[in-house]
Amino acid sequence: MNKESIKSLLNPVAAYKIGGKLWIECNGKKIFGPGPVELLTLIEQTGSINKAAKEMNMSYKKAWEIINALNELVAHPLVITQSGGEKGGGSVITDDAKKLIEYHKQLRERFEAFLERETSDLSL
Amino acid sequence: MNKESIKSLLNPVAAYKIGGKLWIECNGKKIFGPGPVELLTLIEQTGSINKAAKEMNMSYKKAWEIINALNELVAHPLVITQSGGEKGGGSVITDDAKKLIEYHKQLRERFEAFLERETSDLSL
Repeated sequence: MNKESIKSLLNPVAAYKIGGKLWIECNGKKIFGPGPVELLTLIEQTGSINKAAKEMNMSYKKAWEIINALNELVAHPLVITQSGGEKGGGSVITDDAKKLIEYHKQLRERFEAFLERETSDLSL
Repeated sequence: MNKESIKSLLNPVAAYKIGGKLWIECNGKKIFGPGPVELLTLIEQTGSINKAAKEMNMSYKKAWEIINALNELVAHPLVITQSGGEKGGGSVITDDAKKLIEYHKQLRERFEAFLERETSDLSL
């Protein structure tokens, strides 16, 4: 079906859009949606799981559950927690985590491009 | 980020997949997901809104609501109901409806191809 053919079916005064959601599954479970990526990014920015969780209105426990789940599903840990020391601990994300964030961003850009391309086919 | 780089981050014994959902919005409302398409297809097959609704475990009223909503959002009606006559009425879908079903099928195929391409990039 060509593009003109589909356009002829549509109501010329309406606005059409192709919408969608995307996620990464590991062993059949959704693991890497926008939430975990935001959490990792906030840990990077704040240096603290606690602060990151607070900014997301998430409990510390819930944040740890996400991190533990993520750490188990990749080859190497994504978050490293330093305990004690002069600064009293804190958490950092690993280079692998930064690469995953970047991959996720690029994946979302490819998906947005797909949606925009399809939406433009419906624009009268 | 290249494909080998992302693969090196993953757990080699896990199975990764990119999953997703797609829909068509009209004036900001989701209108053409798998449900309405199945309903139109079943009306075509059975010649009856009532039978189509039953096969989908949907009330006749709900089926009509979907059809009315669809009819308003396109240039020309998608379902035509014939009342009375020897065969006592019945419903048919229009050529426009058949074209929309075909468009939707092709759109889903393009989306599946996108997901498969992205998933193959994560396959070790």
